[in-house]
Amino acid sequence: MPERTIRSDHVFHGHLLRLRVDEVELESGRGATREIVEHPGAVAILAWDGARLAMVSQWRAAASADLLEIPAGTLDPGEESGVTARRELAEECGLAAKRWEKGPSFYTAPGFSTELLTLFLATDLLPTEASAPDDEELARSWLTLDEALAASDDGRIVDAKSLVGILWLARRLDGEAP
Amino acid sequence: MPERTIRSDHVFHGHLLRLRVDEVELESGRGATREIVEHPGAVAILAWDGARLAMVSQWRAAASADLLEIPAGTLDPGEESGVTARRELAEECGLAAKRWEKGPSFYTAPGFSTELLTLFLATDLLPTEASAPDDEELARSWLTLDEALAASDDGRIVDAKSLVGILWLARRLDGEAP
Repeated sequence: MPERTIRSDHVFHGHLLRLRVDEVELESGRGATREIVEHPGAVAILAWDGARLAMVSQWRAAASADLLEIPAGTLDPGEESGVTARRELAEECGLAAKRWEKGPSFYTAPGFSTELLTLFLATDLLPTEASAPDDEELARSWLTLDEALAASDDGRIVDAKSLVGILWLARRLDGEAP
Repeated sequence: MPERTIRSDHVFHGHLLRLRVDEVELESGRGATREIVEHPGAVAILAWDGARLAMVSQWRAAASADLLEIPAGTLDPGEESGVTARRELAEECGLAAKRWEKGPSFYTAPGFSTELLTLFLATDLLPTEASAPDDEELARSWLTLDEALAASDDGRIVDAKSLVGILWLARRLDGEAP
């Protein structure tokens, strides 16, 4: 049951984000305001070497903290998500993968943001040369699945996409167990 | 390794969101721009009656779609998250709970948003009277855990907080199994 948009104003155009304010009419006829952050979309990568998961730590201004996350990145305009995923895994982790599989896609914050994020599972990993982009400073690490689950449980991982990815991978690997 | 903020400008003040643009200096000395959406924070509730999970469907302007989600809502200014959780469960599902437990907290989109969301597990449910707030129109449903997991796998649930919640609950209940 869609809302009817009466009026839509773009109030900010940035490098990454745009913000618009919609005046809408609900099915009941009542009016409401929606503040919507337009985002180009993103990918995150579960880079799994069969025993360990590639992770990155970086300063997140929005959280005022270093966050431990799975590698991820934003789509360039018009870019296919699989291309972004390969680029980000190389840039952030110095890794390529022989096998790629698309996992779930989800809205990170559907109450106010258009960001749709697609998870990828990358396996048969091998090192590749790549430099991190100019505006990111990352620390790389490897966690076993048990370590990643423990870090999800004890608050060392506080990033939604990483939690979805780790819990999704755990369930999947559990299904593969003999 | 924090970035040094050189300059910070608020460019939008809305009802729900504020947006600021920070000019920062990285450890290396290089400059970068951060576009940050300031959000008051949120809660989401796993309302579990021992066999089924309470879910809501609602139109999400940001996704241009009806999304199936666990009940959730935004903190009022200065509000303690447990208070928000009780209010939202009543408003969205017409439910109260005798037992409340705090689950994980996480940033929904730490690359650009300050939104920190706390999951709650609500059990020993009972009906309560409450009306939905004026600007939301919701459809309520109940899913078994298997149904919720199937909906997570087949793309009927595409909301990050719901995926974290359902996968977290599945792992927890699995641990409780005899």
